[in-house]
Amino acid sequence: MKKINHNFAVVLAGGQGSRFWPLSRSLEPKQFLSLLTSNSLFHNTLSRIKAIVPSRNIFVVTSQLYFPEIFSYTSEFKIPRANVIFETEAKNTAPSIAVACRLISLADPEAKIAVLPSDHLIRNQRRFNRLLDDAFSLPGLKNNLVIFGILPDYPATGYGYIKIKTQKLKAKSRTGYSVERFIEKPDNKKARMIFKDKRYFWNSGIFVGYAGVFLDEIKRNIPGLYRSISKLYEPKDINNIWKGIKPVSFDCGVLEKTNNLLMIPASNLGWSDLGTWASLDKVLPKDKFTNTINADAITFGSKNITVFGKNRLIACLGLENLIIVDTPDALLITRKDKSEEVKKVVERLKRSKREEYYLHKTVKRPWGRYTVLDKGPGFKIKLVEVAPQKALSLQRHTHRSEHWVVVEGRAKITKGRRVYYVDANQSTYIPLRYAHRLQNPTNYPLKIVEVQSGEYLEEDDITRLRDDFSRI
Amino acid sequence: MKKINHNFAVVLAGGQGSRFWPLSRSLEPKQFLSLLTSNSLFHNTLSRIKAIVPSRNIFVVTSQLYFPEIFSYTSEFKIPRANVIFETEAKNTAPSIAVACRLISLADPEAKIAVLPSDHLIRNQRRFNRLLDDAFSLPGLKNNLVIFGILPDYPATGYGYIKIKTQKLKAKSRTGYSVERFIEKPDNKKARMIFKDKRYFWNSGIFVGYAGVFLDEIKRNIPGLYRSISKLYEPKDINNIWKGIKPVSFDCGVLEKTNNLLMIPASNLGWSDLGTWASLDKVLPKDKFTNTINADAITFGSKNITVFGKNRLIACLGLENLIIVDTPDALLITRKDKSEEVKKVVERLKRSKREEYYLHKTVKRPWGRYTVLDKGPGFKIKLVEVAPQKALSLQRHTHRSEHWVVVEGRAKITKGRRVYYVDANQSTYIPLRYAHRLQNPTNYPLKIVEVQSGEYLEEDDITRLRDDFSRI
Repeated sequence: MKKINHNFAVVLAGGQGSRFWPLSRSLEPKQFLSLLTSNSLFHNTLSRIKAIVPSRNIFVVTSQLYFPEIFSYTSEFKIPRANVIFETEAKNTAPSIAVACRLISLADPEAKIAVLPSDHLIRNQRRFNRLLDDAFSLPGLKNNLVIFGILPDYPATGYGYIKIKTQKLKAKSRTGYSVERFIEKPDNKKARMIFKDKRYFWNSGIFVGYAGVFLDEIKRNIPGLYRSISKLYEPKDINNIWKGIKPVSFDCGVLEKTNNLLMIPASNLGWSDLGTWASLDKVLPKDKFTNTINADAITFGSKNITVFGKNRLIACLGLENLIIVDTPDALLITRKDKSEEVKKVVERLKRSKREEYYLHKTVKRPWGRYTVLDKGPGFKIKLVEVAPQKALSLQRHTHRSEHWVVVEGRAKITKGRRVYYVDANQSTYIPLRYAHRLQNPTNYPLKIVEVQSGEYLEEDDITRLRDDFSRI
Repeated sequence: MKKINHNFAVVLAGGQGSRFWPLSRSLEPKQFLSLLTSNSLFHNTLSRIKAIVPSRNIFVVTSQLYFPEIFSYTSEFKIPRANVIFETEAKNTAPSIAVACRLISLADPEAKIAVLPSDHLIRNQRRFNRLLDDAFSLPGLKNNLVIFGILPDYPATGYGYIKIKTQKLKAKSRTGYSVERFIEKPDNKKARMIFKDKRYFWNSGIFVGYAGVFLDEIKRNIPGLYRSISKLYEPKDINNIWKGIKPVSFDCGVLEKTNNLLMIPASNLGWSDLGTWASLDKVLPKDKFTNTINADAITFGSKNITVFGKNRLIACLGLENLIIVDTPDALLITRKDKSEEVKKVVERLKRSKREEYYLHKTVKRPWGRYTVLDKGPGFKIKLVEVAPQKALSLQRHTHRSEHWVVVEGRAKITKGRRVYYVDANQSTYIPLRYAHRLQNPTNYPLKIVEVQSGEYLEEDDITRLRDDFSRI
């Protein structure tokens, strides 16, 4: 018989973080960006936790908006689909954690759970592993939640703080420290004061506890939420209770109220919450002019600037202290010390329902991705890239015809009852209302140019008849 | 019998001005940009001179690089094709003026000629007309060249100056003023001194004289050039002499040396040489934050910034004193007082033979324009727009096939011996090596998506068999 592993992880991946706009969009949030490594922050989080928690014990709580993204991750990490909880709307962290703890406790009443944000940076993987191991085996875990406190390395005003009761930090604590209280983001003066006091730590958002302790704390501090989640028996039940749930953060709802909280100091983690462009900027490598140039850029007389861009040449003359982020449909130019105001831009875009709020020009799909190259009255031109062995849904449009020209690879086409192949430098035509399907039957990339023709050309003109990704 | 009009104009349109990069490109220079009005500076220059000089007496000296652009202008203004002189390489202004004067003097030995740059701003058309009328009828014209001097309105360091001999300016001069000398662009201190002295004027680059006087001055001051142009009898003869000609500006070669020069003060012209982004910026209308926003932009806490862009959303946070120019393939961000350094960027692009030096993503052609939407190994996607009643050349490609999908209008297609029509939402295929032609036989726009397929996809894979624009 297999030894039962009681270690579980709950990865929070529902954040709609707008602070990395225009690189992040509401449908492609920060956790799915590759900001510092070749993989996304979410991917890095799963890699990190996989070293300690078996895949079948990793749960992901996310938004149903990220449905297309999430399954490529879970299949890569062999996380069961039943472990993914899709929220129908954002309710902040307490409800997300509560739901996951409830489902885990049903599966293993003795479960120990690590709750992890998926949009932070942690550069020291080994240190993280050791700390998490320590936390899982902390004696006080029986009746406490345990939070990771980051040893401050400058008087930050951008983080919340945890104050512990003792001033005597041991070289190696096997017990953790009792938390006295939580402190909101301080002003400059207070931050400098706090920085000198050894009892203050940054709130990392990472915590560990028994499923039972989590649920007890929720029951005691947010009884309404506890009642709601008690009706849950499997992930899809969330749809019945979610609408009535009041949004509240786990910090506010539980951690700031409970007396059963220990902190373990997490130094040398290489941690950053990457809360603003400026905070990302802090951890970027710099050249001799303290510039970071991640773009095809020409700079003269510029210093302390950071440039992100992939698509175009960027010339910078005499610039200082700016962050420039260039994407195909939106450009941000901000003074470094104003970068948190990007949220005002995002709010305005959201209010006016602009596409630049939701999506990039290149849209990821479970089968690959597409890029809108151009559009005009009556037409839309897309480059559609289908991953090897993947297929779009069998579908039909009411308002548009489609011309497909294969430019790379081989396409398998279903059109009505016909099934045929189209190779590079060949084309085919899908008339209005024809059921059709585009597949890549090969192990190589497939690229087609799709020219849509019709009076109405939005994504919602689609009737899915069959789909590999359960999107019907 | 028609009365002979002896007034001629030479419009200089060969400038490869790089200072408005990325809006200008070497193949689409400043004179063809619409910087402040709906028409280009070149168009405005032709409009301006047309009021005084009959179309058949307007000559244009330009570079053969601008061949595709120039004929749409000359046909609009009914300027004879034989009046357009194409230089095979840039030799500065003296050779351009000499060639034009030579050809004009052959046509009309009594010609009076106004020489006009085509990339300056003149906002007061009526004042310009009056001044040019005055100049043409100036008594001193018999044995002098006459130059327009701009009354300085600030102590500019960016212009050359003309110093006249007298300090007594008459309210209305019918004779002009003798020029004492030319002064190079001064430094700040000298500019402030000069500004207080009523004898100094800005050099407008506009001058007037008899063809004979122009030629005499060239003969006396640049005898080598004079000998070369004496071999010219029609515009195409330029090809025989041009290679051997030494580049020199008319200012240096003639105006700074001659004693036969009068100046007429040209006040209230609304003149600017638009020499840098900053000088353009000076004449742009400003909002209450002294910003000029010619773009889809969101600004917070920004002042004294100028934003040009058409294609994307631009968010500006906390910016000051910047000029931002956004184009589909290149972005410029410059401090206003550094904008002249854009020429360093352009030099670097030229050295590394980058496309952003030569062309925009949308390339104008005599028949319309095309935009490269995307390209990758083995394919290129273009949106081709053919103007009403225009046709591309009958042509053939050795390395590529083309798929054409009509998205707007009706195309007339020649393919080998077949001629047929393709309407919106229809497509056709042009195989390798087939002679083919694309025409818009209608009075409405024609738009097609062209998907090229092949190993080599550059513009030079084209054999023209027949062409409406003599490009064979």
